[in-house]
Amino acid sequence: MSPRLRISLAAVFLVAGIAALLVPLRAPRPAIAASGWTPTYTAGGDLVAPKDYREWIYVTTGMDMSYAPKAAGMEDHSMFDNVFVNPEAYRSFVATGTWPDKTVMVLEAREAGSKGSINKSGHFQTGGVMDLEFHVKDESRFPGKWAFFSYDEASGNASLIPQKASCYSCHAEHAAVDTTFVQFYPTLLPITQKKGTLSQSYLKDEAAK
Amino acid sequence: MSPRLRISLAAVFLVAGIAALLVPLRAPRPAIAASGWTPTYTAGGDLVAPKDYREWIYVTTGMDMSYAPKAAGMEDHSMFDNVFVNPEAYRSFVATGTWPDKTVMVLEAREAGSKGSINKSGHFQTGGVMDLEFHVKDESRFPGKWAFFSYDEASGNASLIPQKASCYSCHAEHAAVDTTFVQFYPTLLPITQKKGTLSQSYLKDEAAK
Repeated sequence: MSPRLRISLAAVFLVAGIAALLVPLRAPRPAIAASGWTPTYTAGGDLVAPKDYREWIYVTTGMDMSYAPKAAGMEDHSMFDNVFVNPEAYRSFVATGTWPDKTVMVLEAREAGSKGSINKSGHFQTGGVMDLEFHVKDESRFPGKWAFFSYDEASGNASLIPQKASCYSCHAEHAAVDTTFVQFYPTLLPITQKKGTLSQSYLKDEAAK
Repeated sequence: MSPRLRISLAAVFLVAGIAALLVPLRAPRPAIAASGWTPTYTAGGDLVAPKDYREWIYVTTGMDMSYAPKAAGMEDHSMFDNVFVNPEAYRSFVATGTWPDKTVMVLEAREAGSKGSINKSGHFQTGGVMDLEFHVKDESRFPGKWAFFSYDEASGNASLIPQKASCYSCHAEHAAVDTTFVQFYPTLLPITQKKGTLSQSYLKDEAAK
Protein backbone atom coordinates (compact mmCIF):
# COMPACT_ATOMS: atom_id res chain seq x y z
CA MET A 1 0.00 0.00 0.00
CA SER A 2 1.41 3.43 -0.88
CA PRO A 3 2.08 6.01 1.86
CA ARG A 4 -0.51 8.36 0.38
CA LEU A 5 -3.15 5.62 0.41
CA ARG A 6 -2.31 4.77 4.00
CA ILE A 7 -2.65 8.41 5.06
CA SER A 8 -5.95 8.64 3.21
CA LEU A 9 -7.27 5.48 4.84
CA ALA A 10 -6.21 6.70 8.27
CA ALA A 11 -7.96 10.01 7.65
CA VAL A 12 -11.15 8.28 6.50
CA PHE A 13 -11.23 6.10 9.61
CA LEU A 14 -10.54 9.08 11.83
CA VAL A 15 -13.41 11.02 10.32
CA ALA A 16 -15.67 7.97 10.41
CA GLY A 17 -14.80 7.36 14.06
CA ILE A 18 -15.53 10.95 15.03
CA ALA A 19 -18.75 11.02 13.02
CA ALA A 20 -19.95 7.79 14.62
CA LEU A 21 -19.30 9.23 18.06
CA LEU A 22 -21.09 12.48 17.31
CA VAL A 23 -24.20 11.15 15.59
CA PRO A 24 -25.82 9.56 18.69
CA LEU A 25 -25.24 12.77 20.63
CA ARG A 26 -27.28 14.72 18.13
CA ALA A 27 -29.99 12.08 17.70
CA PRO A 28 -33.23 13.33 19.24
CA ARG A 29 -34.47 11.37 22.26
CA PRO A 30 -37.85 9.83 21.62
CA ALA A 31 -40.83 11.48 23.30
CA ILE A 32 -42.11 8.05 24.33
CA ALA A 33 -39.64 5.67 25.88
CA ALA A 34 -39.83 1.96 25.40
CA SER A 35 -41.04 0.39 28.63
CA GLY A 36 -39.05 -2.71 27.71
CA TRP A 37 -41.82 -4.72 29.34
CA THR A 38 -43.31 -7.80 27.76
CA PRO A 39 -45.80 -10.24 29.32
CA THR A 40 -44.32 -13.15 31.25
CA TYR A 41 -46.16 -15.76 33.27
CA THR A 42 -45.66 -17.93 36.33
CA ALA A 43 -45.73 -21.72 36.07
CA GLY A 44 -49.35 -21.58 37.25
CA GLY A 45 -50.36 -19.24 34.41
CA ASP A 46 -50.50 -16.00 36.39
CA LEU A 47 -49.27 -12.81 34.77
CA VAL A 48 -46.14 -11.36 36.36
CA ALA A 49 -47.69 -7.94 37.04
CA PRO A 50 -45.94 -4.80 35.71
CA LYS A 51 -45.17 -2.50 38.63
CA ASP A 52 -44.41 0.78 36.82
CA TYR A 53 -47.53 0.99 34.65
CA ARG A 54 -48.16 4.53 36.03
CA GLU A 55 -45.19 5.65 33.94
CA TRP A 56 -46.72 4.19 30.77
CA ILE A 57 -49.04 6.05 28.40
CA TYR A 58 -52.20 7.40 30.04
CA VAL A 59 -55.38 6.63 28.09
CA THR A 60 -58.34 7.98 30.08
CA THR A 61 -60.25 8.01 33.36
CA GLY A 62 -63.90 7.32 34.01
CA MET A 63 -65.95 7.57 37.17
CA ASP A 64 -68.63 5.12 38.34
CA MET A 65 -69.06 3.72 34.86
CA SER A 66 -71.43 0.79 34.70
CA TYR A 67 -73.95 -0.95 32.50
CA ALA A 68 -76.16 -1.24 35.58
CA PRO A 69 -77.31 1.23 38.26
CA LYS A 70 -75.17 1.57 41.41
CA ALA A 71 -75.59 -1.22 43.96
CA ALA A 72 -77.84 -0.45 46.95
CA GLY A 73 -75.83 1.10 49.78
CA MET A 74 -73.05 2.23 47.43
CA GLU A 75 -74.68 5.53 46.47
CA ASP A 76 -72.15 7.52 48.51
CA HIS A 77 -69.14 5.55 47.31
CA SER A 78 -67.51 6.50 44.07
CA MET A 79 -64.67 4.97 42.11
CA PHE A 80 -62.36 6.31 39.43
CA ASP A 81 -60.99 3.98 36.72
CA ASN A 82 -57.64 4.99 35.23
CA VAL A 83 -56.54 3.29 32.00
CA PHE A 84 -52.92 2.97 30.85
CA VAL A 85 -51.25 1.12 27.96
CA ASN A 86 -47.63 0.11 27.39
CA PRO A 87 -45.70 2.66 25.26
CA GLU A 88 -44.72 0.24 22.49
CA ALA A 89 -48.38 -0.71 21.89
CA TYR A 90 -49.44 2.94 21.96
CA ARG A 91 -46.84 3.92 19.36
CA SER A 92 -48.09 1.11 17.11
CA PHE A 93 -51.72 2.11 17.66
CA VAL A 94 -51.05 5.72 16.70
CA ALA A 95 -49.49 4.52 13.44
CA THR A 96 -52.06 1.84 12.50
CA GLY A 97 -55.23 2.11 14.61
CA THR A 98 -54.70 -1.50 15.73
CA TRP A 99 -53.16 -3.16 18.79
CA PRO A 100 -49.96 -5.16 18.25
CA ASP A 101 -49.13 -8.48 19.86
CA LYS A 102 -47.97 -8.02 23.49
CA THR A 103 -50.26 -5.03 24.10
CA VAL A 104 -51.05 -4.65 27.79
CA MET A 105 -53.88 -2.43 28.93
CA VAL A 106 -54.13 -1.61 32.63
CA LEU A 107 -57.29 -0.70 34.55
CA GLU A 108 -56.57 0.82 37.95
CA ALA A 109 -59.60 1.50 40.16
CA ARG A 110 -59.12 4.13 42.88
CA GLU A 111 -61.47 5.22 45.61
CA ALA A 112 -62.87 8.71 45.13
CA GLY A 113 -62.59 11.21 47.97
CA SER A 114 -64.51 14.43 48.41
CA LYS A 115 -64.51 17.33 50.87
CA GLY A 116 -60.81 16.85 51.58
CA SER A 117 -58.44 19.80 52.13
CA ILE A 118 -60.00 22.91 50.52
CA ASN A 119 -62.18 20.88 48.15
CA LYS A 120 -65.91 21.42 48.74
CA SER A 121 -67.57 19.52 45.91
CA GLY A 122 -66.76 16.96 43.27
CA HIS A 123 -64.25 14.14 43.70
CA PHE A 124 -60.50 13.54 43.69
CA GLN A 125 -58.51 10.31 43.70
CA THR A 126 -57.13 8.80 46.87
CA GLY A 127 -54.40 6.35 47.79
CA GLY A 128 -56.85 3.44 47.93
CA VAL A 129 -56.27 1.23 44.88
CA MET A 130 -59.38 -0.93 45.02
CA ASP A 131 -58.74 -3.06 41.97
CA LEU A 132 -56.06 -3.58 39.32
CA GLU A 133 -56.68 -5.51 36.12
CA PHE A 134 -54.70 -6.27 33.00
CA HIS A 135 -55.89 -7.01 29.47
CA VAL A 136 -53.09 -8.78 27.61
CA LYS A 137 -52.80 -9.54 23.90
CA ASP A 138 -50.60 -12.61 23.46
CA GLU A 139 -51.64 -14.14 20.16
CA SER A 140 -49.88 -17.45 20.37
CA ARG A 141 -50.89 -18.07 23.98
CA PHE A 142 -54.63 -17.30 24.20
CA PRO A 143 -57.35 -18.85 21.98
CA GLY A 144 -59.07 -15.48 21.52
CA LYS A 145 -55.68 -13.67 21.41
CA TRP A 146 -56.50 -11.66 24.56
CA ALA A 147 -56.95 -12.54 28.24
CA PHE A 148 -57.89 -10.70 31.43
CA PHE A 149 -55.94 -10.89 34.68
CA SER A 150 -56.79 -9.59 38.14
CA TYR A 151 -54.03 -8.41 40.48
CA ASP A 152 -53.58 -10.42 43.67
CA GLU A 153 -51.73 -8.40 46.32
CA ALA A 154 -50.75 -11.51 48.28
CA SER A 155 -48.79 -13.07 45.44
CA GLY A 156 -47.77 -9.89 43.59
CA ASN A 157 -48.98 -11.54 40.39
CA ALA A 158 -52.23 -11.27 38.48
CA SER A 159 -54.53 -14.29 38.21
CA LEU A 160 -55.99 -15.34 34.88
CA ILE A 161 -59.73 -14.72 34.60
CA PRO A 162 -61.22 -17.78 32.85
CA GLN A 163 -62.59 -17.45 29.30
CA LYS A 164 -66.16 -18.21 30.37
CA ALA A 165 -66.35 -15.01 32.48
CA SER A 166 -68.76 -12.45 31.03
CA CYS A 167 -66.01 -9.84 30.48
CA TYR A 168 -64.85 -11.78 27.42
CA SER A 169 -68.20 -11.93 25.62
CA CYS A 170 -69.14 -8.33 26.41
CA HIS A 171 -65.77 -7.06 25.18
CA ALA A 172 -66.07 -9.15 22.03
CA GLU A 173 -69.63 -7.99 21.31
CA HIS A 174 -69.44 -4.28 22.13
CA ALA A 175 -65.87 -2.99 22.15
CA ALA A 176 -64.90 -0.59 19.38
CA VAL A 177 -61.47 -2.00 18.50
CA ASP A 178 -60.19 -5.57 18.90
CA THR A 179 -62.06 -6.19 22.21
CA THR A 180 -60.94 -2.87 23.74
CA PHE A 181 -63.39 -0.08 24.59
CA VAL A 182 -61.78 2.61 22.48
CA GLN A 183 -65.18 4.34 22.19
CA PHE A 184 -64.44 5.67 25.70
CA TYR A 185 -60.87 6.77 24.88
CA PRO A 186 -61.15 10.31 23.47
CA THR A 187 -57.59 10.56 22.12
CA LEU A 188 -57.64 7.11 20.49
CA LEU A 189 -61.12 7.09 18.93
CA PRO A 190 -60.24 9.66 16.23
CA ILE A 191 -57.27 7.49 15.16
CA THR A 192 -59.52 4.45 14.61
CA GLN A 193 -61.99 6.54 12.69
CA LYS A 194 -59.16 7.82 10.47
CA LYS A 195 -57.61 4.36 9.97
CA GLY A 196 -60.96 2.59 9.55
CA THR A 197 -60.29 0.02 12.28
CA LEU A 198 -63.56 0.11 14.23
CA SER A 199 -65.01 -3.36 14.84
CA GLN A 200 -68.04 -4.60 12.92
CA SER A 201 -69.96 -5.32 16.13
CA TYR A 202 -69.39 -1.78 17.41
CA LEU A 203 -70.47 -0.25 14.11
CA LYS A 204 -73.60 -2.40 14.26
CA ASP A 205 -74.35 -1.21 17.83
CA GLU A 206 -73.98 2.43 16.75
CA ALA A 207 -76.12 1.98 13.65
CA ALA A 208 -78.89 0.39 15.71
CA LYS A 209 -79.31 3.55 17.83
CA MET B 1 5.38 8.62 9.65
CA SER B 2 6.49 5.02 9.18
CA PRO B 3 4.30 2.59 7.20
CA ARG B 4 3.82 0.39 10.28
CA LEU B 5 2.67 3.40 12.34
CA ARG B 6 0.24 4.42 9.61
CA ILE B 7 -1.25 0.92 9.44
CA SER B 8 -1.53 0.86 13.24
CA LEU B 9 -3.25 4.23 13.30
CA ALA B 10 -5.66 3.17 10.59
CA ALA B 11 -6.47 0.00 12.53
CA VAL B 12 -7.05 1.96 15.75
CA PHE B 13 -9.43 4.35 14.04
CA LEU B 14 -11.28 1.50 12.35
CA VAL B 15 -11.79 -0.26 15.65
CA ALA B 16 -12.75 2.99 17.38
CA GLY B 17 -15.24 3.77 14.63
CA ILE B 18 -16.87 0.37 14.86
CA ALA B 19 -16.95 0.49 18.67
CA ALA B 20 -18.56 3.93 18.67
CA LEU B 21 -21.24 2.67 16.32
CA LEU B 22 -21.96 -0.40 18.42
CA VAL B 23 -22.04 1.12 21.91
CA PRO B 24 -25.32 3.10 21.51
CA LEU B 25 -27.04 -0.03 20.21
CA ARG B 26 -26.41 -1.82 23.49
CA ALA B 27 -27.28 1.07 25.83
CA PRO B 28 -30.51 0.32 27.74
CA ARG B 29 -33.43 2.63 27.01
CA PRO B 30 -34.69 4.41 30.13
CA ALA B 31 -38.09 3.55 31.58
CA ILE B 32 -39.06 7.23 31.59
CA ALA B 33 -37.95 9.15 28.56
CA ALA B 34 -36.79 12.67 28.78
CA SER B 35 -39.39 14.84 27.11
CA GLY B 36 -36.59 17.17 26.11
CA TRP B 37 -39.05 20.00 26.59
CA THR B 38 -38.17 23.15 28.44
CA PRO B 39 -40.29 26.32 28.75
CA THR B 40 -39.80 28.92 26.03
CA TYR B 41 -41.75 32.11 25.53
CA THR B 42 -42.90 34.39 22.75
CA ALA B 43 -41.77 38.02 22.59
CA GLY B 44 -45.09 38.95 24.20
CA GLY B 45 -44.47 36.67 27.19
CA ASP B 46 -46.79 33.81 26.20
CA LEU B 47 -45.68 30.25 26.87
CA VAL B 48 -44.99 28.22 23.75
CA ALA B 49 -47.41 25.43 24.65
CA PRO B 50 -46.16 21.81 24.76
CA LYS B 51 -48.20 19.70 22.35
CA ASP B 52 -47.34 16.16 23.50
CA TYR B 53 -48.06 16.54 27.22
CA ARG B 54 -50.38 13.48 27.03
CA GLU B 55 -47.22 11.39 26.64
CA TRP B 56 -45.74 12.84 29.82
CA ILE B 57 -46.22 11.42 33.33
CA TYR B 58 -49.86 11.14 34.41
CA VAL B 59 -50.51 12.51 37.90
CA THR B 60 -54.24 12.22 38.61
CA THR B 61 -57.78 13.04 37.50
CA GLY B 62 -60.57 14.74 39.45
CA MET B 63 -64.17 15.38 38.56
CA ASP B 64 -66.15 18.56 39.24
CA MET B 65 -63.71 19.64 41.93
CA SER B 66 -64.47 23.07 43.31
CA TYR B 67 -64.24 25.14 46.43
CA ALA B 68 -67.75 26.36 45.63
CA PRO B 69 -71.01 24.60 44.76
CA LYS B 70 -71.79 24.06 41.07
CA ALA B 71 -73.09 27.10 39.20
CA ALA B 72 -76.86 27.22 38.63
CA GLY B 73 -77.80 25.53 35.37
CA MET B 74 -74.60 23.47 35.30
CA GLU B 75 -75.94 20.62 37.43
CA ASP B 76 -76.08 18.28 34.44
CA HIS B 77 -72.69 19.23 33.08
CA SER B 78 -69.64 17.54 34.46
CA MET B 79 -65.95 18.04 33.81
CA PHE B 80 -62.91 15.87 34.34
CA ASP B 81 -59.51 17.46 35.13
CA ASN B 82 -56.47 15.45 34.06
CA VAL B 83 -53.07 16.45 35.49
CA PHE B 84 -49.71 15.67 33.85
CA VAL B 85 -46.12 16.69 34.62
CA ASN B 86 -42.97 16.64 32.47
CA PRO B 87 -40.90 13.47 32.99
CA GLU B 88 -37.72 15.24 34.09
CA ALA B 89 -39.58 17.04 36.89
CA TYR B 90 -41.30 13.81 37.95
CA ARG B 91 -38.02 11.93 38.18
CA SER B 92 -36.62 14.70 40.38
CA PHE B 93 -39.74 14.76 42.56
CA VAL B 94 -39.58 11.01 43.17
CA ALA B 95 -36.00 11.40 44.37
CA THR B 96 -36.41 14.55 46.50
CA GLY B 97 -40.08 15.37 47.14
CA THR B 98 -39.55 18.80 45.59
CA TRP B 99 -40.09 20.30 42.14
CA PRO B 100 -37.01 21.33 40.17
CA ASP B 101 -36.63 24.47 38.08
CA LYS B 102 -38.42 24.11 34.69
CA THR B 103 -41.20 21.91 36.12
CA VAL B 104 -44.34 22.14 34.01
CA MET B 105 -47.65 20.87 35.33
CA VAL B 106 -50.54 20.56 32.89
CA LEU B 107 -54.25 20.73 33.73
CA GLU B 108 -56.47 19.45 30.92
CA ALA B 109 -60.23 19.82 31.44
CA ARG B 110 -62.44 17.47 29.40
CA GLU B 111 -66.17 17.33 29.12
CA ALA B 112 -67.76 14.30 30.80
CA GLY B 113 -70.15 12.13 28.80
CA SER B 114 -72.60 9.59 30.15
CA LYS B 115 -75.02 7.08 28.64
CA GLY B 116 -72.84 6.65 25.57
CA SER B 117 -72.37 3.24 23.87
CA ILE B 118 -73.17 0.53 26.43
CA ASN B 119 -72.54 2.79 29.43
CA LYS B 120 -75.63 3.33 31.58
CA SER B 121 -74.36 5.30 34.57
CA GLY B 122 -71.34 7.25 35.66
CA HIS B 123 -69.16 9.32 33.35
CA PHE B 124 -66.41 8.90 30.75
CA GLN B 125 -64.20 11.49 29.05
CA THR B 126 -64.99 12.88 25.65
CA GLY B 127 -63.09 14.62 22.87
CA GLY B 128 -64.10 18.07 24.11
CA VAL B 129 -61.04 19.70 25.71
CA MET B 130 -62.71 22.61 27.48
CA ASP B 131 -59.64 24.16 29.06
CA LEU B 132 -55.88 23.68 29.12
CA GLU B 133 -53.62 25.35 31.66
CA PHE B 134 -49.95 25.22 32.51
CA HIS B 135 -48.19 25.86 35.81
CA VAL B 136 -44.53 26.63 35.09
CA LYS B 137 -41.62 26.88 37.52
CA ASP B 138 -39.01 29.19 36.02
CA GLU B 139 -37.08 30.57 38.96
CA SER B 140 -35.12 33.33 37.29
CA ARG B 141 -38.10 34.56 35.27
CA PHE B 142 -41.02 34.84 37.74
CA PRO B 143 -40.98 36.79 41.03
CA GLY B 144 -42.75 33.98 42.88
CA LYS B 145 -40.82 31.33 40.85
CA TRP B 146 -44.04 29.95 39.32
CA ALA B 147 -46.61 31.31 36.86
CA PHE B 148 -49.90 30.13 35.35
CA PHE B 149 -50.70 30.16 31.66
CA SER B 150 -53.98 29.51 29.84
CA TYR B 151 -53.97 27.91 26.38
CA ASP B 152 -55.28 30.05 23.56
CA GLU B 153 -56.33 27.92 20.59
CA ALA B 154 -56.18 30.85 18.16
CA SER B 155 -52.48 31.50 18.74
CA GLY B 156 -51.36 28.01 19.72
CA ASN B 157 -49.62 29.57 22.71
CA ALA B 158 -50.63 29.96 26.33
CA SER B 159 -51.24 33.43 27.76
CA LEU B 160 -49.71 34.47 31.07
CA ILE B 161 -52.25 34.83 33.88
CA PRO B 162 -51.28 37.96 35.84
CA GLN B 163 -49.89 37.63 39.39
CA LYS B 164 -52.86 39.41 40.95
CA ALA B 165 -55.26 36.62 39.87
CA SER B 166 -56.61 34.64 42.82
CA CYS B 167 -55.07 31.37 41.64
CA TYR B 168 -51.69 32.59 42.89
CA SER B 169 -52.73 33.43 46.44
CA CYS B 170 -54.87 30.31 46.86
CA HIS B 171 -52.05 28.06 45.63
CA ALA B 172 -49.57 29.82 47.90
CA GLU B 173 -51.85 29.56 50.96
CA HIS B 174 -53.24 26.04 50.61
CA ALA B 175 -51.14 23.87 48.32
CA ALA B 176 -49.25 21.01 49.94
CA VAL B 177 -45.91 21.38 48.10
CA ASP B 178 -44.37 24.50 46.59
CA THR B 179 -47.73 25.94 45.36
CA THR B 180 -48.87 22.63 43.84
CA PHE B 181 -51.87 20.69 45.17
CA VAL B 182 -50.04 17.45 45.91
CA GLN B 183 -52.65 16.66 48.60
CA PHE B 184 -54.86 15.58 45.68
CA TYR B 185 -52.15 13.47 43.97
CA PRO B 186 -52.32 10.02 45.56
CA THR B 187 -49.04 8.68 44.16
CA LEU B 188 -47.05 11.84 45.01
CA LEU B 189 -48.38 12.60 48.50
CA PRO B 190 -46.63 9.64 50.14
CA ILE B 191 -43.31 10.81 48.69
CA THR B 192 -43.66 14.24 50.29
CA GLN B 193 -44.61 12.69 53.60
CA LYS B 194 -41.51 10.50 53.43
CA LYS B 195 -39.18 13.33 52.37
CA GLY B 196 -40.74 15.87 54.75
CA THR B 197 -41.44 18.46 52.05
CA LEU B 198 -45.03 19.44 52.86
CA SER B 199 -45.52 23.21 53.03
CA GLN B 200 -45.98 25.00 56.35
CA SER B 201 -49.27 26.52 55.23
CA TYR B 202 -50.69 23.11 54.28
CA LEU B 203 -49.62 21.57 57.58
CA LYS B 204 -51.28 24.50 59.36
CA ASP B 205 -54.53 23.93 57.40
CA GLU B 206 -54.51 20.24 58.31
CA ALA B 207 -53.76 20.89 61.99
CA ALA B 208 -56.66 23.36 62.20
CA LYS B 209 -59.21 20.67 61.27
